[in-house]
Amino acid sequence: MPALPTRIAALTCAIALLASPLRAQAPADKLIDGALKDSAAWNRLAELVDTFGNRPVGSESLESAIDWILAQMKKDGLDNVHGEPVMVPHWVRGRESAMLLTPHRGPLHMLGLGRSVGTPASGITADVLVVNDFADLHAHAAQAKGKIVLFDHHFDPNKPPFDAYGEAVIYRFAGADSAAAYGAVAALVRSVTPHSLSTPHTGAMGYGDTTANAHHVPAAAITLEDADMLHRIQNRGQTIRVTLSMEAHMLPDAHSRNIVAEVRGSEHPDEIIVLGGHIDSWDVGQGAMDDGGGFVSAWEAVRLIKQLGLKPKRTIRVVGWVNEEMGSRGANAYRDAHRAELAKTKFAMESDNGAFTPKGVRLTGPDSLLPVLRELIAPLARIGVTEAAMGDPEADVTPLVEAGVPALALDIDASRYFWYHHTDADMMSALDPKQVGMCVATMGVVVWGAANR
Amino acid sequence: MPALPTRIAALTCAIALLASPLRAQAPADKLIDGALKDSAAWNRLAELVDTFGNRPVGSESLESAIDWILAQMKKDGLDNVHGEPVMVPHWVRGRESAMLLTPHRGPLHMLGLGRSVGTPASGITADVLVVNDFADLHAHAAQAKGKIVLFDHHFDPNKPPFDAYGEAVIYRFAGADSAAAYGAVAALVRSVTPHSLSTPHTGAMGYGDTTANAHHVPAAAITLEDADMLHRIQNRGQTIRVTLSMEAHMLPDAHSRNIVAEVRGSEHPDEIIVLGGHIDSWDVGQGAMDDGGGFVSAWEAVRLIKQLGLKPKRTIRVVGWVNEEMGSRGANAYRDAHRAELAKTKFAMESDNGAFTPKGVRLTGPDSLLPVLRELIAPLARIGVTEAAMGDPEADVTPLVEAGVPALALDIDASRYFWYHHTDADMMSALDPKQVGMCVATMGVVVWGAANR
Repeated sequence: MPALPTRIAALTCAIALLASPLRAQAPADKLIDGALKDSAAWNRLAELVDTFGNRPVGSESLESAIDWILAQMKKDGLDNVHGEPVMVPHWVRGRESAMLLTPHRGPLHMLGLGRSVGTPASGITADVLVVNDFADLHAHAAQAKGKIVLFDHHFDPNKPPFDAYGEAVIYRFAGADSAAAYGAVAALVRSVTPHSLSTPHTGAMGYGDTTANAHHVPAAAITLEDADMLHRIQNRGQTIRVTLSMEAHMLPDAHSRNIVAEVRGSEHPDEIIVLGGHIDSWDVGQGAMDDGGGFVSAWEAVRLIKQLGLKPKRTIRVVGWVNEEMGSRGANAYRDAHRAELAKTKFAMESDNGAFTPKGVRLTGPDSLLPVLRELIAPLARIGVTEAAMGDPEADVTPLVEAGVPALALDIDASRYFWYHHTDADMMSALDPKQVGMCVATMGVVVWGAANR
Repeated sequence: MPALPTRIAALTCAIALLASPLRAQAPADKLIDGALKDSAAWNRLAELVDTFGNRPVGSESLESAIDWILAQMKKDGLDNVHGEPVMVPHWVRGRESAMLLTPHRGPLHMLGLGRSVGTPASGITADVLVVNDFADLHAHAAQAKGKIVLFDHHFDPNKPPFDAYGEAVIYRFAGADSAAAYGAVAALVRSVTPHSLSTPHTGAMGYGDTTANAHHVPAAAITLEDADMLHRIQNRGQTIRVTLSMEAHMLPDAHSRNIVAEVRGSEHPDEIIVLGGHIDSWDVGQGAMDDGGGFVSAWEAVRLIKQLGLKPKRTIRVVGWVNEEMGSRGANAYRDAHRAELAKTKFAMESDNGAFTPKGVRLTGPDSLLPVLRELIAPLARIGVTEAAMGDPEADVTPLVEAGVPALALDIDASRYFWYHHTDADMMSALDPKQVGMCVATMGVVVWGAANR
């Protein structure tokens, strides 16, 4: 038999369970229970990503997914369901490979970086210079000319994941220009992740065009395992020779859309609470975590408010921004299309840190709103969402923040986020139905509270 | 300041440290210290696999690796260094892909299974039937004809890894024949692993030719993530259509070699202690864990005995068996070439469970040898190797066991073994220098003890 305190706790729990159906449930509790009672959000996300696959800007799969979402939103009974036009960049990966020629012949496991130029059809064959970072490249400047430079900067496992990412991603973003400035013919970068099972990570890169003699060289990420191997080979004094082949190229900008749907406010319909995520993804995996899970959590929160018959005083608007991954065109287009409403946009909330266990909500805006945020998340204490703090906004609400709108973001357990980020492993299998439900509950409770206070 | 017992312990430790150089070290302690003092074994393994890559039977890389190892063994000063001829099967993977056509178009992440036939050049395009296991296939027999059958049997995370593997691997080995018996045109199998980052696992399959109307259909493994996705799609009642393309084919048997080298016994050179691992690998990753690490641990143990000037009474012979992965031809050839010596082969020790932290040694042979094994491993208690138990032999020593030779195997922490097994992630990055050193120490101390008792 358990000790007395355990028995008392069990009894208290039993009384609470018996009592709960007898009292009228607060809307926040209804939202939490609704979000957690089945796997609705996980299942809807799975149906989306299994049916349409990943959703890179410019792709037919993205546009088909948007069509389907808009149709489903109408079936959900949401108000004002529509797409808003956005012109998006259209980068196409094509076929690609990196082949190690010496000291042994074998494939390197790679993904070209988004926006990279391609190679000639015969590829680029050159020796590899491995460097740790920009300073190390500078120290070996004399050896870089004509080489493929590999930036082998490690993801720091002792830092918070997003901090370690922030430090490492600069090599993915700017490695090509930096290598080209020293005369290199291509850049490789160690994938930005703490954990790999031969899993390359793509992501955006950019050409700055700031260096007069810089030219655009192709850039690709290789796995941690392959980067470790090349570094060891160099340390042994052996020559590393590689053929990099990439068909990557840009096409003219393509037509796409931001997704918009609402539950109209009953008292102040012109005052707006925005929530959402981005609907585009990289062209690998399913884009289930990044950011299918964020967008679908927001959508499900709004669907749940509608389904439960809750009537918000202010308008709650869900937005699926397009083109977060290739430069925030959707975020800017949303701001531009809704400039007249921004003064009455009370909060803009985004989820783009993975639909894992939420820990709290962070605020970008006046400090004076922090007590308001604490009030908004108070009903979430029962599911462990308790942290309210100031912090940085997510990418898609950043243009709104710059226009003075307070932003909210989910703070989520990030321990596994960079395992899957921008990889073929960003699949439904990475996500847990209960954790996705907790994200729905968090977004639903916060926007409900914000719409009614 | 620490509490008194802590200070006394620290003092005792300091005295021991001061005293240790003053007394003659036992050979076992010299071997342990030598194996752990630097990363020699890990570095030699890295040089092997970085220089030659993976080592599938029939490949030039395997033969070049064998040449290099034999040359290094001579430099090490080992005795009787030579290769022993073995004819090996020669399966070639060629190009391969699996493309999902509906409900969306996108690549499945796959590896063809070893010994599988290929597809026609245009591939095999068919609908997919997902089943959990053989019984589920039987229950859906009427639906299998003309389909590609996916066996979605899960690796049980609650069982010891090698037990879970044993249960699941039957679908990899026999899935093709089973599917073909129901009229299927190809078989896919969920990769045999508990953890994946979009990581397909190859491995051997076989055609039994026992069913009169069976024909050989191609077989490939797909990732956990893709298997989960296809199963969800089927559960939604949607059609799954896939094109499987594989160039896989067999070539005529090829010439290869077992590697043999010795430290000759000073008193009973005709009495032999064998230790080793297998030198071939799959044609993915580097074969660093499976079984580069096992073979190099054995080699390094013998090199260390030689380097330390230790003179065993009996002969210690290191063997690199070839073709463990495709059917144990090397193991059988070793037995056949050394039949006359088997009665005087006292123990045959193999490491093929990954060069992770060793926990103990297991015995296949008369129970009466268990006290001997306990005595042999006693010096390893200081590095945590303490378990002596009866158990199954590794594959390459099984023909010796059948001929009456007692076998020993390293029991190793298997928690991560099946993450890397038969994948592109079987790279040096999976292995830790200290753990590899512990494997060297364990093999060295055991064979030294066995050679001198």
